[in-house]
Amino acid sequence: VSPLQRALASARDPSLLSLALGMPDPALFPAKELERAAVRALASGDEVLQYNLPCEKLQAQICKQMAERGVDCSPDSVLLTAGATQALALLVRLLLDPGARVVEEELTYPTYQLAVDPYSPDIVTIPSTVRTGIDVDVLERKLARGHRPAFLYLIPDGHNPLGASLSDEKRRRLAELASKYRMPIIEDDVYGSLRYDGPITRPIKALAPEWVYYIGSFSKVLAPALRVGWLVVPPALISPLSVIKEAADVNTSTFAQWVTAEYLEAESLSAHVRSLRHAYRVRRDTMDDALRSCVQPVGSWEVPTCGVFFWIDLPEDINASELLRSAIEHEHVSFLPAETFSRGRRTNGLRLSFSRCQPHEITEAVSRLGRALSRLLSHARYSR
Amino acid sequence: VSPLQRALASARDPSLLSLALGMPDPALFPAKELERAAVRALASGDEVLQYNLPCEKLQAQICKQMAERGVDCSPDSVLLTAGATQALALLVRLLLDPGARVVEEELTYPTYQLAVDPYSPDIVTIPSTVRTGIDVDVLERKLARGHRPAFLYLIPDGHNPLGASLSDEKRRRLAELASKYRMPIIEDDVYGSLRYDGPITRPIKALAPEWVYYIGSFSKVLAPALRVGWLVVPPALISPLSVIKEAADVNTSTFAQWVTAEYLEAESLSAHVRSLRHAYRVRRDTMDDALRSCVQPVGSWEVPTCGVFFWIDLPEDINASELLRSAIEHEHVSFLPAETFSRGRRTNGLRLSFSRCQPHEITEAVSRLGRALSRLLSHARYSR
Repeated sequence: VSPLQRALASARDPSLLSLALGMPDPALFPAKELERAAVRALASGDEVLQYNLPCEKLQAQICKQMAERGVDCSPDSVLLTAGATQALALLVRLLLDPGARVVEEELTYPTYQLAVDPYSPDIVTIPSTVRTGIDVDVLERKLARGHRPAFLYLIPDGHNPLGASLSDEKRRRLAELASKYRMPIIEDDVYGSLRYDGPITRPIKALAPEWVYYIGSFSKVLAPALRVGWLVVPPALISPLSVIKEAADVNTSTFAQWVTAEYLEAESLSAHVRSLRHAYRVRRDTMDDALRSCVQPVGSWEVPTCGVFFWIDLPEDINASELLRSAIEHEHVSFLPAETFSRGRRTNGLRLSFSRCQPHEITEAVSRLGRALSRLLSHARYSR
Repeated sequence: VSPLQRALASARDPSLLSLALGMPDPALFPAKELERAAVRALASGDEVLQYNLPCEKLQAQICKQMAERGVDCSPDSVLLTAGATQALALLVRLLLDPGARVVEEELTYPTYQLAVDPYSPDIVTIPSTVRTGIDVDVLERKLARGHRPAFLYLIPDGHNPLGASLSDEKRRRLAELASKYRMPIIEDDVYGSLRYDGPITRPIKALAPEWVYYIGSFSKVLAPALRVGWLVVPPALISPLSVIKEAADVNTSTFAQWVTAEYLEAESLSAHVRSLRHAYRVRRDTMDDALRSCVQPVGSWEVPTCGVFFWIDLPEDINASELLRSAIEHEHVSFLPAETFSRGRRTNGLRLSFSRCQPHEITEAVSRLGRALSRLLSHARYSR
């Protein structure tokens, strides 16, 4: 089974509290509104159940969303996809020749790794920190030394797994490097509208439209089962990407496209996102409080201003995968260990998600994590 | 834009009669039943809008469908996919190394070509005829001579584009060759239940379960916009395919899986398929009659016993792509020419689909095609 399936299966155990999955809380889905949108879409005619051309109403709505994020784009630069992951897979297929070079962060989204690994890429790793994200100085030195990557994949807001959001200064420098070295940046913005505090940022796409290929999705702000995401790319790439898309799954579900468009036309997505931000901000603060009580001073973290993840840095002698095994067995709590995000190279850190659990569950789960940490530390001391 | 998008866009012209697209007739979708299934799925809880594990109810229903097709399988051999095309793309990713060899029919499904082409395969071509399908003697000689393909892709029932269905004898020999030479057969059975007459066949999967990877779909019998298909493969392949699937699009829409399962539990798919068979049989016979009036004796064809396509063999000096340009311009009728299915190697043939048009439209469209053929022939005579 796949990594997600393994995590989903373990999350079904009712005695286990899982902070492993970065998925939204189903209780916060606009289920009634989506049902109304589905009924309206079906009433619009049988063609909504057929193969079809991309939904123009949806492309127009996406351009409005993009404008709210500070990106000016037209429908002929929007490719509709079956979620953000497919958007990434299509770009990888377009840009990455077998054995070609990619630059990637030392800690990054595991599904990105799954997407590039079949091409056996030559990987250049750039450090990233929980406080400020990717180290742009190191990137610049590597590029100046002549490294020519097929692309750089980034999550500038609410980084997965670090939770970090890049400063405006870093975004500006990344945009400059992309243009100067003709290096495409794949910008994954699925968490960008889940911002709780800190300065409102614009995607890098707004700064270097030609060299940034933008990925958006309705999975985190509406519902994952829609499987509707999108790319914003230079219009010349739409045609080759459409051919790759056709070979991958023919057609994004017409029905899902129309349901999403109906929802966006009839409801206020921004009001819904405000309510999500409110709910998730409470959970974030609850997790921060719980970490202060139960995980300090062993672990250290930054409070994320965006997204759904805390990253906990651990002392070098703590192996988070070992901690996970013990945490599941003795405390019935789970998370994702550093190895998952670092191609096995880093062990002393872990990712906690605060989106799916209720606040009281977060408090309980972090307290269990604290006990699991204490247990590991006392065993370590004992065995020395 | 992609080939499908081009065809869809031209089919939007109300003055054009399109026999190009192999898609179902939306008027025949069980729209009311699917709407009821959607409402029930949404009423079952918010998890239906979430990422989720594969729907076990749907896997069980698929095993029942497979039993009706004569294939005995268990849920642990069923992988749910976003339609048949994704099923094919996942298998290609699993089985085909860059530059490796594939055997393929000289006329085959263009999306199969889109799926394999990025791997730059070494292609061995096997002849196929409209009357009996793939030439198994030639295949056997190539295999005996030491060709070792990654797989062979076949559509044994209602072949796309030939309309042919393989005899039991050919199926038995193909099953033996697959086992003897350890050559996986990818068996695409999306048209298999649309059988109008002739003997009822069993998929090759029933004869060589270990070496046949079976593709099924609800797109042709329910509605394409569900984007629900499946693979039946040896259970050991489910795990690697699930990882490839996760990298492609994370998760087949939970909602679409549940809607399909609700439909299958509450309604009679076989009664619906019977009504489809009735409607499409009338259209097939209408097309055959029209071809006898308007296209004989220039073109020749077999009446398909299954699926939605007629293949018309044309004299060698007729270029169907040229015919298509003239047919669209002067007669406002379209089809797909032989080049589309033969990697450009064959020009004297064309595919007509009878599933999407009403009978009176089929009669009119074939009469226009006859006029276009006459026009081309008289021009040819004139220019000689």
